[in-house]
Amino acid sequence: MTLAPALARSIGLRRLLLKDEGRNATGSLKDRASALAVVKAREKSRKIIACASTGNAASSCAGMAAAMGMQSVIFVPERAPEPKVTQLLIFGATVVRVRGSYEQAFQLSQKACQQWGWYNRNCAINPYLVEGKKTAAFEIAEQCAWDLTDWISVSVGDGCTIAAIWKGLRELKTLGWIDRTPRMLGVQAEGAAPVTRAFLSGHAMQPVEPGTLADSIAVGVPRNWKKAADAVRESGGTMLNVSDDEILEAMRDTGRLAGVFAEPAAATAVAGLRRALADGVIGKNASAIALITGNGLKDIQSARAAAGQPFEISPDGAGLDEILCRQGLIPRRC
Amino acid sequence: MTLAPALARSIGLRRLLLKDEGRNATGSLKDRASALAVVKAREKSRKIIACASTGNAASSCAGMAAAMGMQSVIFVPERAPEPKVTQLLIFGATVVRVRGSYEQAFQLSQKACQQWGWYNRNCAINPYLVEGKKTAAFEIAEQCAWDLTDWISVSVGDGCTIAAIWKGLRELKTLGWIDRTPRMLGVQAEGAAPVTRAFLSGHAMQPVEPGTLADSIAVGVPRNWKKAADAVRESGGTMLNVSDDEILEAMRDTGRLAGVFAEPAAATAVAGLRRALADGVIGKNASAIALITGNGLKDIQSARAAAGQPFEISPDGAGLDEILCRQGLIPRRC
Repeated sequence: MTLAPALARSIGLRRLLLKDEGRNATGSLKDRASALAVVKAREKSRKIIACASTGNAASSCAGMAAAMGMQSVIFVPERAPEPKVTQLLIFGATVVRVRGSYEQAFQLSQKACQQWGWYNRNCAINPYLVEGKKTAAFEIAEQCAWDLTDWISVSVGDGCTIAAIWKGLRELKTLGWIDRTPRMLGVQAEGAAPVTRAFLSGHAMQPVEPGTLADSIAVGVPRNWKKAADAVRESGGTMLNVSDDEILEAMRDTGRLAGVFAEPAAATAVAGLRRALADGVIGKNASAIALITGNGLKDIQSARAAAGQPFEISPDGAGLDEILCRQGLIPRRC
Repeated sequence: MTLAPALARSIGLRRLLLKDEGRNATGSLKDRASALAVVKAREKSRKIIACASTGNAASSCAGMAAAMGMQSVIFVPERAPEPKVTQLLIFGATVVRVRGSYEQAFQLSQKACQQWGWYNRNCAINPYLVEGKKTAAFEIAEQCAWDLTDWISVSVGDGCTIAAIWKGLRELKTLGWIDRTPRMLGVQAEGAAPVTRAFLSGHAMQPVEPGTLADSIAVGVPRNWKKAADAVRESGGTMLNVSDDEILEAMRDTGRLAGVFAEPAAATAVAGLRRALADGVIGKNASAIALITGNGLKDIQSARAAAGQPFEISPDGAGLDEILCRQGLIPRRC
């Protein structure tokens, strides 16, 4: 875990830590779930593991399968971004691009798993994955020396991750390893926020057509929405939404002020903290952890939108002093 | 460290381990050098750190500076790839693109460091960086429980990394923490192999015009060639070259058979082992470690060249069985 004092000051928090899951084997928190999935698959003597996904679940499934000498079959929808498909192919997955929606890819993967007896890593139906993900909470608690922060901020797409973190924390409390549990801050992107709406209204989740650049949490029909909402409520926490602009700003800030390169869905947790402070939901004396769920290298395109531009000079160095002066890097005598 | 039995079998080695430095904070081994650089900069009360680089040295310098609350100025040549520039900008570096060669960017960075009193992270002139890099050898030894493999394979660009690994090993031997040191296998890309030529000929290094897709080791004028050649000789090891095709094959194999996504320069170490086995330089009973120096997510374009293509089907699933059959994933009754 990384202590991020400059980012904390910028947000207005007393203390902020980043748990960087982008440093896992395939670059996301999903490795924790997939690690368990391949073990369960081996337990059942399955040689092939499958799922439908465009993102981190798929690459972690393919990577873990490769490490275990298993084969993986990944169903992706037509609009799956090329770089994410490349990561799957490098891990030797059989990638089946379905000329259709995610839902159609999902249905085909379900059918194939049933028909051919493959191990099914789809998060919506596999009960073990949450047990893998909750280990992030165990690690966080250990790295905090069992004295946790007031809040943990987690971005929410399907809802499985925040529910898993809470499950881990609750178990540690039950076991007596920690005295108090943090409040959970669940953060969704404005363009894909059915869980926040359900949480705040108390009504059942209404599906939406997702629209956000944070592709890893762009979920219109979250299958674990209830588990997520219950977890946040039980923790005494709350949920809120942030805009894509706030997400890009958080990517910049997390890189610039803490040296951590977060993918958009990961930066969403940081954006949520800033918003919560501004809205008075979290007080200035609070301490918090932001869960950085995936590596920014996975989505260079969004990073480019967040990052700004380089300066350009000729090889003789003309113009350099002016740039450095404007940037406040050299004394203002120019 | 990752045990890679399937990759070992494919290469013909008895035992193979991968040391995945792609999981460091900014995705490369260079973080070890930059971590020390920012500490030395703070020791000297410098607020700004600078270097000239297009790649991993620059991003690790910018990331570590951000984490420490320092500013960084990175000089990049005109042809610096966009994704690598993006990573610098995300870390808040002032990026100065010099309309010229790497050498010209390097000269401007040297001049600016002298003129403005910035801390200079250029590997060619900073004597501390090797002390940071050598910690990879300490970790490797610890993770091997102080009983090392017969060989360690390291790709060579400038020459600093392999010299640093050897320095770490030699120090452990001197201290009595290990009984024997592995032989070093230094691997260059055929299109940028001045160090191999110097090593094999015994003459001084002759600069070349580099041409390889492994950009992190595409060095035409390696400033640490002598340290590298001496290290390999002292270890009882050797050097050899591999083609870009062999590098792409190694990227595929490392992903497919070990679940590790290596950038081209990192996969070069694996390609070198395969070549050394084929040439009889390393025997089949040997054990080896390949140093994976950088994360494949940094260079998705090369990965795409290595990775192959997805299959495509319509949403009704027509054609799926045929694909699965061809891939050997379902019984051959189709």
